[in-house]
Amino acid sequence: MTANETITRIIREKDSLICVGLDVRPDRIPERIMAMPDPIFAFNKRIIDATADLVLAYKPNLAYYEALGTEGWDLLKRTVDYIPDGVITIGDAKRGDIGTTAEHYARALFDLGFDMVTVNPYLGIDSVRPFIEDETRGVFVLCLTSNKSSRDFQYLSADGRPLYLHVAETVSRWNERGNCGLVAGATHPGELTAIREAAPDLPFLIPGIGAQGGDLEAAVREGTDTRGEAAVINSSRGIIYASSGDDFADAARRETEKLREAVNRVRAGKHPT
Amino acid sequence: MTANETITRIIREKDSLICVGLDVRPDRIPERIMAMPDPIFAFNKRIIDATADLVLAYKPNLAYYEALGTEGWDLLKRTVDYIPDGVITIGDAKRGDIGTTAEHYARALFDLGFDMVTVNPYLGIDSVRPFIEDETRGVFVLCLTSNKSSRDFQYLSADGRPLYLHVAETVSRWNERGNCGLVAGATHPGELTAIREAAPDLPFLIPGIGAQGGDLEAAVREGTDTRGEAAVINSSRGIIYASSGDDFADAARRETEKLREAVNRVRAGKHPT
Repeated sequence: MTANETITRIIREKDSLICVGLDVRPDRIPERIMAMPDPIFAFNKRIIDATADLVLAYKPNLAYYEALGTEGWDLLKRTVDYIPDGVITIGDAKRGDIGTTAEHYARALFDLGFDMVTVNPYLGIDSVRPFIEDETRGVFVLCLTSNKSSRDFQYLSADGRPLYLHVAETVSRWNERGNCGLVAGATHPGELTAIREAAPDLPFLIPGIGAQGGDLEAAVREGTDTRGEAAVINSSRGIIYASSGDDFADAARRETEKLREAVNRVRAGKHPT
Repeated sequence: MTANETITRIIREKDSLICVGLDVRPDRIPERIMAMPDPIFAFNKRIIDATADLVLAYKPNLAYYEALGTEGWDLLKRTVDYIPDGVITIGDAKRGDIGTTAEHYARALFDLGFDMVTVNPYLGIDSVRPFIEDETRGVFVLCLTSNKSSRDFQYLSADGRPLYLHVAETVSRWNERGNCGLVAGATHPGELTAIREAAPDLPFLIPGIGAQGGDLEAAVREGTDTRGEAAVINSSRGIIYASSGDDFADAARRETEKLREAVNRVRAGKHPT
């Protein structure tokens, strides 16, 4: 089964497009947890226990683990190992380097146990190829990012089309083995429609709802495919830091349920079953 | 002193533009070393001991350390710590992520002790700002990379200029604190001239000579500034794996000397002192 087929299978099994971003920050974790031994792992474990039955995917962003220093990589490995089967693990690493080096990044990230990895398109196919040789694992390639300065380069127009649409079209061609997707931010409704037209079949990883202010309804309506699938809707802070108290795991579950229902209402409106 | 001023100072003190890429691969390290305890650190230590007086910079590429698993980050930290004062350390990480996350990447990499870090421009200034807030440390932003598939996107023409020149011009504007440079591959002579025109004062990190087949003479002639400075010429495999035998450190020194002289001959021809 290809990576993209696995995404579709889990979306249908769990009726969920929800991805929880495990972006751990010691300053946001409840004090009682921080006083425990191995506190960040304890935090991740409780978040995962509280939400795993509701989600399509977990997405740790590597920056937060690397910022913890030499322990971060080990913590990340234990976190990925702890995530149960039947949930996609996405390594949000945004890597991009030339051929031989990209092979080492692919090994590093897949050895950690990730199913999918985010990559940067700037260096072209050389930098992505090592991540897509095994059809069961794959990539989400940055297309249109959720931040303001995505305008600096991603909107530059070449041959009448912005760079992000060139990326969408090119990644569609890279998807020979069914394991390529795109990252497209929820903060750009309108643009999402154009990206979906350029890449009708690819799964989209959609960050930017919640704290970043993206429009959830537009993101789901425009970002999903014609069946209301092929999208991974990420929330990080809005779920894992929903409460700063001891009830953080229950609060995370409530927010995940709420988001899943809100997303599924839009999907039902788009593609009534 | 700004990061770019420090680069100039060391270039003049040591009369060297040479950067040694510490891209460690267990399969390329001599067997006798691999049989020692802590072999990769032993290898790096000997390479550094043999070359530190000749070089402007060392550049570990993070992919090779991450591929070593949980020990890699610790090995990288000890390697950076071991590099003596008076040599620039460049973390070749090619990171790029949105604001809050970029702050964590910056912390992770500067906590390791790097002076400069390579970053990817695709996400725009948000992703670079946390790396350039302290003028004493800075970035080399990917502009035109040395690999074949740099053509996939970097040559797309917007407003009559290729994307890589938009990057060069934009990064020149980001350089308010004197701590921004560009990565421009030696495999593209000709293009280097145009990039130097677009960014006359920025330091260029120039990979791609040696194993990648770049033209050294053209790279130095076109990539340096009018004084024959502002360039960091990287060689990785050509130096650290110059010999696969026990004489690897001596061989690395010989290759470093040879490269430094070859580079300095071109510099002297360009800007006779």
